[in-house]
Amino acid sequence: MDSGRQREETAGVVGVARSHDGALVGAIEAGGTKCVCAVGTGPGERMLAKASFLTGDDPARLLAEVFGWLQAQEERFGALQALGIASFGPVDLDTRSPTYGWITSTPKPGWRNTDIVGEARKIFPTIPIGFDTDVGGAALGEQAWGQASGLSDFVYITVGTGIGAGAVAGGRLVHGLVHPEMGHMALPRIPGDSFPGVCPFHGACWEGLCSGPALQVRTGMRAEGIPADHPAWVLETQYIAYAIANIACVLSPQRVILGGGVRKGGQLGEEWLFQRIQDNVRTVLNGYIAYPLLNERLDLYIVPPGLGDDAGICGALALGQSAIDDP
Amino acid sequence: MDSGRQREETAGVVGVARSHDGALVGAIEAGGTKCVCAVGTGPGERMLAKASFLTGDDPARLLAEVFGWLQAQEERFGALQALGIASFGPVDLDTRSPTYGWITSTPKPGWRNTDIVGEARKIFPTIPIGFDTDVGGAALGEQAWGQASGLSDFVYITVGTGIGAGAVAGGRLVHGLVHPEMGHMALPRIPGDSFPGVCPFHGACWEGLCSGPALQVRTGMRAEGIPADHPAWVLETQYIAYAIANIACVLSPQRVILGGGVRKGGQLGEEWLFQRIQDNVRTVLNGYIAYPLLNERLDLYIVPPGLGDDAGICGALALGQSAIDDP
Repeated sequence: MDSGRQREETAGVVGVARSHDGALVGAIEAGGTKCVCAVGTGPGERMLAKASFLTGDDPARLLAEVFGWLQAQEERFGALQALGIASFGPVDLDTRSPTYGWITSTPKPGWRNTDIVGEARKIFPTIPIGFDTDVGGAALGEQAWGQASGLSDFVYITVGTGIGAGAVAGGRLVHGLVHPEMGHMALPRIPGDSFPGVCPFHGACWEGLCSGPALQVRTGMRAEGIPADHPAWVLETQYIAYAIANIACVLSPQRVILGGGVRKGGQLGEEWLFQRIQDNVRTVLNGYIAYPLLNERLDLYIVPPGLGDDAGICGALALGQSAIDDP
Repeated sequence: MDSGRQREETAGVVGVARSHDGALVGAIEAGGTKCVCAVGTGPGERMLAKASFLTGDDPARLLAEVFGWLQAQEERFGALQALGIASFGPVDLDTRSPTYGWITSTPKPGWRNTDIVGEARKIFPTIPIGFDTDVGGAALGEQAWGQASGLSDFVYITVGTGIGAGAVAGGRLVHGLVHPEMGHMALPRIPGDSFPGVCPFHGACWEGLCSGPALQVRTGMRAEGIPADHPAWVLETQYIAYAIANIACVLSPQRVILGGGVRKGGQLGEEWLFQRIQDNVRTVLNGYIAYPLLNERLDLYIVPPGLGDDAGICGALALGQSAIDDP
């Protein structure tokens, strides 16, 4: 085993308590398009029930459906010990703020200033409720059961309808002033690429260049259908590499987990997509950070989620369990 | 008082213990050109003695001088309770690593693989020794006595001979795999600017475009002498704004402290330089993060160091005091 791997395995104290891994919790992964719910104690067979609802533009109606479903599961599996809510954002994560637990300034119709945690408390008044961004939740899920096990500093990125990332630094989710919005990073232009980007705020920021909708506008195809030899994959993997290299420069993560639908690489396939991104990150960093993992073993540094497409909902489960330890 | 300011002032639990603010410590700020040393209990009048040595290419000789000077100060002021070392890098900050406390893969002649903490322990075997990057130290100093008082999430940037940054997230200095190397971030090119950059690893990364040496190659002048209307300041403030906007997207800091010699803006002056950077950051972010501080009060968000040019040596003092609490 190479030294990079060895160092990485021994590096990092995990700050998120896992003593309630095993507690029965309810999980809500609120996405812009659909809202996935689950009840369980962990991933795989430990997820006892799962359901999906269209998010729509009426929060009151959706939340009534979701909470009704969770209550029905309590009849089957027993009382929930906590609830975890991982939500699209922006959200207010400052527990001292009067709008803590709200989805705040989202452009999504109907959802601006929705007190999602407050509504949940009305239905589940006595159990702890964990709340974070969808990607913050997914990061905790990967730490609990996936590719970030034992790590104190890592990033979970999703490249899908949008681009977002959850970061854990020194064992804790990074919140700061609001929460990270890594998808809106400014990146160098690849010479010859004049695609204006699709971000309504920034045009050609990372999300504007690389999200699923950006790929669709660029190619006229959904990511799944884009052929392996389409030049869009060359651009996509180069821009993602710039972004990951920048994240490595700013946060120095021990690992970068790249999730979301686009990471499957369409007809190119996940393995090739990751290899190209790894090669490009190596080229961009050019050996500056003299650490084996960043030079010889990028395949261990940039990895798909261990929980696959369940990273999000497992993240909400992990958020619920974390709330038991740290209510 | 606007809401952004209010929120900011109440946001953030400080994780770095300050119970030893007041302890007499020795401080070493090891820079690439000079090595500043001090003995004291804090900034200003609390810094009882200060000296500066040329770093040179012979670590053994320099360290003998530095330790000798510190021992001489003990004769005057009493026994040091701790030592703080803030060093140019890259350095090994992993306390479980066999090379903890080393300056590692620096290209600086003579300094590669220098066990600076180990050498200090030989001379000061019984007192705690705090060790971090120069910019990590400066961040702690600003938290203890400067512009980051009471903040849990902030960044200290220096733009000088090189560009580097120390980040505090959730109250703790960010280390991660190695430590941040924010100066090597890749940035968008400003249209019409074809300057190749001076970074030997990346050419036109942030440091390659914006460090003091980059400005000097670009203009033929040292930063201090560059006239206020020189187009280099337009480029400099735009690139710095891109970098700060990216840092805001990745880390969501509550504040960004911009230090180093270049931040004085030569003949343009510090006030104008900061105003241009603030205006450019506002333009780059374009209101995406709906937070008053990031839209209306950039003047409170991007600020010069409260400790001025003493940010670095005060940082080493703060590192020493922190080591008493967390040895």
